[in-house]
Amino acid sequence: MSDFIIRGDICTSADKKTIQTYEDSYAVCADGVCKGVFAKIPERYRDLTVHDYRGKLVMPGMVDLHIHAPQYAYRGLGMDMELLSWLDHYAFPEEAKYRDLSYAEKAYGIFADAVRHSATTRMVAFGTLHREATELLMDKMEDTGIVSFVGKLNMDRNSPDDLRESSAEESVAETELFLKDALGRYRNTYPIITPRFVPSCTDACMEGIGKLSERYGVRVQSHLSENPGEVAWVRELCPDTAFYGEAYDRFGLFGKPQQTVMAHCVYSSDEEIALMKENGVFIAHCPASNMNVASGIAPIRRYLDLDLRVGLGSDVAGGQTESLFTAMVEALQVSKLYWRIVDNSCKPLSVDEVFYMATKGGGEFFGKVGAFTEGYEFDAIVIDDSRLPHPQELSTKERLERAIYLGGDIKALVAKYCRGKRIL
Amino acid sequence: MSDFIIRGDICTSADKKTIQTYEDSYAVCADGVCKGVFAKIPERYRDLTVHDYRGKLVMPGMVDLHIHAPQYAYRGLGMDMELLSWLDHYAFPEEAKYRDLSYAEKAYGIFADAVRHSATTRMVAFGTLHREATELLMDKMEDTGIVSFVGKLNMDRNSPDDLRESSAEESVAETELFLKDALGRYRNTYPIITPRFVPSCTDACMEGIGKLSERYGVRVQSHLSENPGEVAWVRELCPDTAFYGEAYDRFGLFGKPQQTVMAHCVYSSDEEIALMKENGVFIAHCPASNMNVASGIAPIRRYLDLDLRVGLGSDVAGGQTESLFTAMVEALQVSKLYWRIVDNSCKPLSVDEVFYMATKGGGEFFGKVGAFTEGYEFDAIVIDDSRLPHPQELSTKERLERAIYLGGDIKALVAKYCRGKRIL
Repeated sequence: MSDFIIRGDICTSADKKTIQTYEDSYAVCADGVCKGVFAKIPERYRDLTVHDYRGKLVMPGMVDLHIHAPQYAYRGLGMDMELLSWLDHYAFPEEAKYRDLSYAEKAYGIFADAVRHSATTRMVAFGTLHREATELLMDKMEDTGIVSFVGKLNMDRNSPDDLRESSAEESVAETELFLKDALGRYRNTYPIITPRFVPSCTDACMEGIGKLSERYGVRVQSHLSENPGEVAWVRELCPDTAFYGEAYDRFGLFGKPQQTVMAHCVYSSDEEIALMKENGVFIAHCPASNMNVASGIAPIRRYLDLDLRVGLGSDVAGGQTESLFTAMVEALQVSKLYWRIVDNSCKPLSVDEVFYMATKGGGEFFGKVGAFTEGYEFDAIVIDDSRLPHPQELSTKERLERAIYLGGDIKALVAKYCRGKRIL
Repeated sequence: MSDFIIRGDICTSADKKTIQTYEDSYAVCADGVCKGVFAKIPERYRDLTVHDYRGKLVMPGMVDLHIHAPQYAYRGLGMDMELLSWLDHYAFPEEAKYRDLSYAEKAYGIFADAVRHSATTRMVAFGTLHREATELLMDKMEDTGIVSFVGKLNMDRNSPDDLRESSAEESVAETELFLKDALGRYRNTYPIITPRFVPSCTDACMEGIGKLSERYGVRVQSHLSENPGEVAWVRELCPDTAFYGEAYDRFGLFGKPQQTVMAHCVYSSDEEIALMKENGVFIAHCPASNMNVASGIAPIRRYLDLDLRVGLGSDVAGGQTESLFTAMVEALQVSKLYWRIVDNSCKPLSVDEVFYMATKGGGEFFGKVGAFTEGYEFDAIVIDDSRLPHPQELSTKERLERAIYLGGDIKALVAKYCRGKRIL
C-alpha cells in the first residue's frame, strides 16, 4: 500500500452538527490511515504523490448501514403496497430464486457492479437464507474493494415454503458453516449474524444464533419496529416480551455481547429506545423505504438528542436506490414532515446532521471510519460538481449542500478510495 | 414540419388510473399531432420516416405546472428553513439580482440549458417582477423548443425594498407592457398573469391585473394555501374573504374567466376546494417543495376523487430539481405518509396515477397534451433504460415503473419531441 496525498476542496464532519470545509487543501493518507488535513503539505510528507482534484469536492466515503443485496434486482418495482404484503408479493418470491447459483451469479454481479460505481465505501448487507449464494455475494463484494458485512439470513418460520429453513437446527448449523467458511477468508468482507426479523425466527433459532454470535465474536443485524402491523405481530408472537427489541435482547442479539445494527426503529417504545442506548445499538435510518412501503417516519431528532448511534441505510429494495446522497435528502425531507405533522418539538434535521449520519455516524459501526480525522481509516470520494453550473459565487459548503440535494454521486463521482486504496 | 413515426416500447395513460403500454409499436405524428399508436404501420402511413427506438421507452413529454426560473440558480441551497423565512433569506435576495440584465442573461442561460436537457416538454414558469429580464427569459425558453407560459411577477407590498414595485399602478402598467410585448411574439412561449401570492399584492394591483387577464385573454398562475403561517397571514390581510382562494376569485384570478393554475393547495378548506372544482382551477402538486420548506402534504387523493384537475410541479427552488421523474416518486412517497400519518381513508397514489399527473393531468392546461391519443399534440421523450440492468424478465410497464423510481431522465434521455418537432 502506498502513501499519498489528495488535493481538493475537502469536506468532513467536525462534530454531529457541523460540516467543516477546507478549500484547496491536502488530506494525507499513510498506511491506509488519515494523517490529517492541511492547508499546505507538511515538510514530513513532501515526498508523497499528490492526487490532484483541485476544484472538486472531496469527502469521506458513504456508509450504508442497511441494504438487501438480493432485492437490488427489483429495486423501484411493485411499490404500491405496504411492508407485509410487499414481502409476500415481491421480496420473498425474488429471494427464493437465489437457491439457483447461476441466478445469484448474474444478479449479484449486477449488484456488485452498481455498488462499485456508487459513493458507498462501507456497507452492511443482507443476503438470502442460502449459504452458498451468500458466500458468492461475499466473493463479489470483496472484489469491489468496499468494506462490508454480509449476512446469510435465518428464516425458520412464517415464510413461504420455498424460502424457509426446515428447522431451527438446520438454520443454526448452516449459519455456523457460513461463519466458518467466511471468517478470516477476506480482507474487507465479514460475515454477520442476520435473523431476518423476529416473525421469521423461532426462539430455538434465535437462541442458537445468539450463541454463535458470542462464540465466534460475530456482529448482528436485523429489523426493528418498522411498521405498526409488524410490531403488533411481534407482540403476539412473543407475549412474554415487553417490547420488540427485547425479543432480540433475550438471546444476546441486541448490541451485547456483539455490536448490532437495527434497521428502521420507526415505532420504538421508550423502553426499547432506552435499551438501544444502554447497549449501544446502531440505528439504520432508511427514510426512502419508510415512505415507499408506507411505514411512517422515524423520530431521528429524538434519537440524536438522546445521543443514540444513528447512520443511514438505503434499504434497497424498500428504498429505490443505493445512493446515500438520495438517502440524505430523504432524511432531511421526512424530518421536516415529522416536525410539521407529527411533533413540532422535533426540529428538522440539518444538512450537517444528515452528512454526519451518512459518514461518521454509520462509520462508527466500522471503527474509526467516516471522517478525515487523524487516525481514521482513509475512505474518500471525489465529486466533480462542475456539471452543476451556477451564476453566483458558492462556498465549498454550499457546493456540498447542492451536490447532496442534486444526487452528486450519480454522474459526477470521479474517484473512490477505501482503506487508503483507490478502488474506482 | 415533417410527418414521421416513432418506433419503440410506448407508454401512455389510458385513463387516470391506468398506464397502457404497447411493446415494440409505432406512434404516428402528422402535422404535429398524434394519429395513434399501432402494432404495425398502417398502409396510409407506410411512406413516413420511422425513427427507430426499438427496446427503448417512449412516453409523452413531462409537464411541469410550477417552476421558478430565477430560483434555479440556488436550487438545493439553504433548505434548512421553512417557507416565509426561506423567502426572506434566499428567494427574495436572489430574485432582486435579476434587475441586472447581464446577471439574468447568465442565470437564465443556465436555466434554459437545464430544461432543454430535461424530460420536460411543457412548463408554467414564474420569472421575477422585472419585465425586461422576464422577456429575456421568454426568448431563451422559445429557443429550447419547449412550450411554456412565463410570468412577470406582481409584487407591490410586503416585499423587500429592492424587490417591490413602487405602486399598484406601476405593477399593472408594467404587466400590460409585458403582455403587449409578449403576446403573439413567439411560437411556443406565452405570457401569463402572475401575482406572486396574495401577501405580495394590494387589492388595487389584483384588481388591475384581473382586468388585464380578462381584456387580453391571458391565463393566471399563483400560489395557494401552501403553509399554515401563510394561510393565517392571508386571513389577516383579507378579513373580508372566507378563504384564501376567494382573495384571487374576487378579482377574476381564480379559473374564471381565464384558466388558472395554483401551486400547492396543501391547506385548502372545503369551500376553497369546492370553488376550485367549480372554476376548473388546476392544482400544481409540488411534493418536493412541500417537504423541503416544511409545508406539509397536500391531500391529492382527495382532489383526484373529487375529479379536480391535478398536475405536478417541480417548484424549483422550493423543489431541488427540475426532474418530473423525481416529482413523481415524491408524490408517491408523500401520499403514503399521508395515508399512514394523517388520514388512512386517503389511499396512497399509484404509479399509474402519478404518471397521469405528470403527463396528461398537467397537459390539459395546454389543451390536448400529454398522451399518445389521436388528436393530441405530439410531445414525446425517449428513455434508454438499458443502463438499468436486471437479471429477470421485465414487462414494459415494470421497466417504466423502474425508470420513474430511478430518475430515468437523468442519464438516459435520448430524444425529445415537442409539437411534432424533435428538440433534443
